[in-house]
Amino acid sequence: MIRAGIVGGTGYTGVELLRLLALHTEVDVTVVTSRADAGLRVDALYPSLRGVIDVKFSAPDIDVLSRCDVVFFATPNGTAMLMAEQLLALGIKVIDLSADFRLKDPVEWSRWYGMEHACPNLIAEAVYGLPEVNREAIKQANIIACPGCYPTAVQLGFLPLLEAGLIDIKHLIADVKSGVSGAGRKADLATLMSETGESFKAYAVNGHRHLPEIIQGLTAFAGNPVGLTFVPHLTPMIRGIHATLYGQLLDPDKVSLSEVHALYESRYQHEWFVEVLPQGSHPDTRNVRGSNNCQISVFQPQGHQVIVVLSVIDNLVKGAAGQAIQNMNLMFGFKEEAGLKIIALYP
Amino acid sequence: MIRAGIVGGTGYTGVELLRLLALHTEVDVTVVTSRADAGLRVDALYPSLRGVIDVKFSAPDIDVLSRCDVVFFATPNGTAMLMAEQLLALGIKVIDLSADFRLKDPVEWSRWYGMEHACPNLIAEAVYGLPEVNREAIKQANIIACPGCYPTAVQLGFLPLLEAGLIDIKHLIADVKSGVSGAGRKADLATLMSETGESFKAYAVNGHRHLPEIIQGLTAFAGNPVGLTFVPHLTPMIRGIHATLYGQLLDPDKVSLSEVHALYESRYQHEWFVEVLPQGSHPDTRNVRGSNNCQISVFQPQGHQVIVVLSVIDNLVKGAAGQAIQNMNLMFGFKEEAGLKIIALYP
Amino acid sequence: MIRAGIVGGTGYTGVELLRLLALHTEVDVTVVTSRADAGLRVDALYPSLRGVIDVKFSAPDIDVLSRCDVVFFATPNGTAMLMAEQLLALGIKVIDLSADFRLKDPVEWSRWYGMEHACPNLIAEAVYGLPEVNREAIKQANIIACPGCYPTAVQLGFLPLLEAGLIDIKHLIADVKSGVSGAGRKADLATLMSETGESFKAYAVNGHRHLPEIIQGLTAFAGNPVGLTFVPHLTPMIRGIHATLYGQLLDPDKVSLSEVHALYESRYQHEWFVEVLPQGSHPDTRNVRGSNNCQISVFQPQGHQVIVVLSVIDNLVKGAAGQAIQNMNLMFGFKEEAGLKIIALYP
Amino acid sequence: MIRAGIVGGTGYTGVELLRLLALHTEVDVTVVTSRADAGLRVDALYPSLRGVIDVKFSAPDIDVLSRCDVVFFATPNGTAMLMAEQLLALGIKVIDLSADFRLKDPVEWSRWYGMEHACPNLIAEAVYGLPEVNREAIKQANIIACPGCYPTAVQLGFLPLLEAGLIDIKHLIADVKSGVSGAGRKADLATLMSETGESFKAYAVNGHRHLPEIIQGLTAFAGNPVGLTFVPHLTPMIRGIHATLYGQLLDPDKVSLSEVHALYESRYQHEWFVEVLPQGSHPDTRNVRGSNNCQISVFQPQGHQVIVVLSVIDNLVKGAAGQAIQNMNLMFGFKEEAGLKIIALYP
Repeated sequence: MIRAGIVGGTGYTGVELLRLLALHTEVDVTVVTSRADAGLRVDALYPSLRGVIDVKFSAPDIDVLSRCDVVFFATPNGTAMLMAEQLLALGIKVIDLSADFRLKDPVEWSRWYGMEHACPNLIAEAVYGLPEVNREAIKQANIIACPGCYPTAVQLGFLPLLEAGLIDIKHLIADVKSGVSGAGRKADLATLMSETGESFKAYAVNGHRHLPEIIQGLTAFAGNPVGLTFVPHLTPMIRGIHATLYGQLLDPDKVSLSEVHALYESRYQHEWFVEVLPQGSHPDTRNVRGSNNCQISVFQPQGHQVIVVLSVIDNLVKGAAGQAIQNMNLMFGFKEEAGLKIIALYP
Repeated sequence: MIRAGIVGGTGYTGVELLRLLALHTEVDVTVVTSRADAGLRVDALYPSLRGVIDVKFSAPDIDVLSRCDVVFFATPNGTAMLMAEQLLALGIKVIDLSADFRLKDPVEWSRWYGMEHACPNLIAEAVYGLPEVNREAIKQANIIACPGCYPTAVQLGFLPLLEAGLIDIKHLIADVKSGVSGAGRKADLATLMSETGESFKAYAVNGHRHLPEIIQGLTAFAGNPVGLTFVPHLTPMIRGIHATLYGQLLDPDKVSLSEVHALYESRYQHEWFVEVLPQGSHPDTRNVRGSNNCQISVFQPQGHQVIVVLSVIDNLVKGAAGQAIQNMNLMFGFKEEAGLKIIALYP
Repeated sequence: MIRAGIVGGTGYTGVELLRLLALHTEVDVTVVTSRADAGLRVDALYPSLRGVIDVKFSAPDIDVLSRCDVVFFATPNGTAMLMAEQLLALGIKVIDLSADFRLKDPVEWSRWYGMEHACPNLIAEAVYGLPEVNREAIKQANIIACPGCYPTAVQLGFLPLLEAGLIDIKHLIADVKSGVSGAGRKADLATLMSETGESFKAYAVNGHRHLPEIIQGLTAFAGNPVGLTFVPHLTPMIRGIHATLYGQLLDPDKVSLSEVHALYESRYQHEWFVEVLPQGSHPDTRNVRGSNNCQISVFQPQGHQVIVVLSVIDNLVKGAAGQAIQNMNLMFGFKEEAGLKIIALYP
Repeated sequence: MIRAGIVGGTGYTGVELLRLLALHTEVDVTVVTSRADAGLRVDALYPSLRGVIDVKFSAPDIDVLSRCDVVFFATPNGTAMLMAEQLLALGIKVIDLSADFRLKDPVEWSRWYGMEHACPNLIAEAVYGLPEVNREAIKQANIIACPGCYPTAVQLGFLPLLEAGLIDIKHLIADVKSGVSGAGRKADLATLMSETGESFKAYAVNGHRHLPEIIQGLTAFAGNPVGLTFVPHLTPMIRGIHATLYGQLLDPDKVSLSEVHALYESRYQHEWFVEVLPQGSHPDTRNVRGSNNCQISVFQPQGHQVIVVLSVIDNLVKGAAGQAIQNMNLMFGFKEEAGLKIIALYP
């Protein structure tokens, strides 16, 4: 039984960590911090957690966190980089769900996140927590940079095609749709129900912060710099990401859709949380709602050159809290699937 | 490890039973019937169940079901009453999620359900599966009539007040709102998203089938025939029931709200799945979404004579599949909460 | 052609006034104020208004407003009472969509709205803008207090029964459900889509600000103080209010449902915007979405003593902007229905 | 004043025609057919139309329709082609909102629609009713094939780029998202609220019926056969289509985004119902909800080779009934915008 702390326990990724960790048999959540709500019972703010967590919010204090074996950061960007070094020095493992350690280039990071990086020396040490790619490194890591939600769906969708070198890496398109919980739990006009309900829109077409993270990952898979157009959209639902990915086969005469499908099945056959659907099936975000699964389909419309990959996740689980726990399981030698055998809530 | 069968596995209560039983460590689901989909893998129809259930739909056949220790009926009304007797004769326990055995008066049943009762002799034997009221009888039962979703929310809300004799039983009002999954999984104009989304309405104000069931239950609690006005409403969401209950205190000068609140806490203190919220808190259906919990609050607006009780459940869990499993646990001597320690999906 | 000004043009009632007035052939909207957005084109903030309004937001200044014949206040409570007197002195008619002049008792007003009333001397002069009750007074008025959304739905629902003296006025119940746009357009955690979508809850059960306004109205209809329990609820949709009203017939043996239905038809037969549905029909909020209509049904469940009235409106139209324009039409001698012949958006 | 008939008045495009035509000052709707509901008042089925239409559904009979000047077909595919010839012979103009006359190649039509074309000789005469492209032909036409909803959004989005020859026509991508009302008003499991609410999915990736229609249109704009990948998606909302279109500039060094934007503004400057948003603005389907507008933005993410066009419409208005009326206005010499100056319902 390890002791876990959560810094920033009042946002959606924080409360999702609590939902999942409360039923994890190897973990005891002993600290949940919130500067604003310090002293309040966690289940007073989140009545869904009544009976499963008996903790009060505390101020985000290193002394309090020092009792933990692992600390999750479910904070806005810019917080984890201020505290990670101290925690690591105390021998505490750090799992950061924010963007602080995702980009390997601190200058690029500053450009997209609009602040100086406070802890550039840790960037190299931080392991990018996509287990399907970095499993062995994660097992040895002391600090994990959990992938963003869009990057998780897009990278898992493109991974087999890029590793196999089957598509033109200069003309990748990722048209991705997200539920509104991805915007976080903060008072904001733009994500009011009256603003987002019954409506659909693209946003940040000129450049979203997840773009450099995705490019960094895809470039690593391909072994060469990729060209990517990434358009995020806001969908009138709470949870779920659906990535529709377009790649052009380099040699359509030599590769059949069945071979591409087989490639995906082979690449993910030993993965706990990536499921390749039968040919012709379309994944639906509801089928992964609340679960840590990524469901993927591949198509070749009208038998032409373009391969269309559909990849769905729950942005708060495989796109955040669930993936963080999957990383924790690997870091501490637990079963990778411990605490994550959750079936999606349908309907 | 017992073997369970589900008759009518393609509806929402059927797939919800599968979601919950798949993770129940004492139960192996060995038969799932569907006349229309016989031969199809269950997870082909329900991709959310991939990896957790390795069964094909079979025709609803007594021989196949005879291998089970318990059979759940997640069927339309009128099916369980045709098969229950044969199963019981084989020593198989029956848990009926439909309405066939809920009403003790078969004439009344016929009037509301529009058909002759095919098996009136079993009605007396069937135990009404509301564990908070009938726990000991359930433990001994061979056949359970699971309460309807509206009746569960309303009965748990009124129970302490009626048992204590504090309110005028002739003028009860239950204004209840349900998500659309309560209408079941069937092709029907009325529950299309274009018909029910972004809209709210009452229906069946002149008389809903759950009315006699609720009256039967409340009358038993009160010890005398109650007078009830029950108005069901359709809410533009998928899961959840919110009952707003109104009762007039017989002697408002002698009973304070704090005493009523204490009465509720006391009545439900040993219950796994009924939670009385702190005074002033309003329950929210999302806080029980996917869980087997009922959350209840009591109010006395402006200090006047009327007590308002708010009671929320997930109609598919505590209002159907979860409650059915709670009954199963009691019947087979498992822990009452086995397989039901699920935290609501928020947000 | 009259010139209209809108103070507080960036909220939902403000933009709804713009939607309706833009097509009103007797009105030219010449001033729209917003302190925060002064200088910005109105259609830059609201692209739905492109091509129909060629105005920029201006600061809320009396000089600018002095060019208007009528000024609408679509402001938070507490603003209209600071400016109304000056506008009236300039001969400008004032239509206040906020609560500032709704309650006749300034002490009661202060108690519910948490501030001193800045202009108590105008309260008596202000006419409560419910045309179905105060039509003649509205025609003569210089200042109108537009009813709240809940009060409109509840008063129109109870009005015929109370005027006719058919029900026990001491035990009225109004169980009312509102879409989230009723909370206004402001950055607020509680009305985020992730907080309100797919969930249903009651709120302010102990006392909502619309309670005294409703009691004031119902008391006037009945001629005696009424006893009312009012429970508002938040529904996961954007627009719409559904009031479910319960009253006990004083003499059920002497009044039939058909007579009650005929009473409603008679009371509203000359009203443009109140429609009594055929017996047995249930109103649906979508059927008034975007329109100025109130649709009403009456029921007597199981033939018992309780009359159930269902009353639906669009909270932003008949519950706010549409009703305000109906008042304006009466004040300026236009056709009462001018600019309001809008058909609900279904589906 | 002309007399209009609507065949198939009970579907969503039919009731939308009624909503719009009821307020059209040049048109009197005299016949609305529905085999199933013949004899029923239209406003009994659609209470939103109370007070604006005083007609009963009649059987779809040529004799009855012969009193009309124009007949709209809001029917499933395969009906208009059986009746159009007779109506035209009577001098009645025909506006078909179904797909019967959209494709110029009857063999292709049969392949996608799964039946023989019953009236191939009329195909050449039928004018494709996209006024922004075929205005003059529409004015002279006796029979109009109204474009599908997806094709309208995609064609208006790509039109200026293709006419100007700026992009590689062999690698077009249209990633399009639709609200569920596009599936029509029919009892169908797949469009239940419990199936489509809170979920997002692609469908028909291998080939949707609108694909050949879009290719036919884009090929005409480009003057050469285009290569198109079209992926439709189902979004959890009722109305709205959002097309995200991707094209690669043939010569990115010679064309700036500002020039592309100016091209769009120029192409649509005289169009009533196509609005090009300012650079950097993202269109939102809610801003055209209920209106006949198409709002369009163009982007060049990160200054690279790919142009992203965002195009939104209301699928039931500009994508169906509104466009049909726009065609009618042109055919009968009314103002093109008559009856269509409707402002979107926001929020």
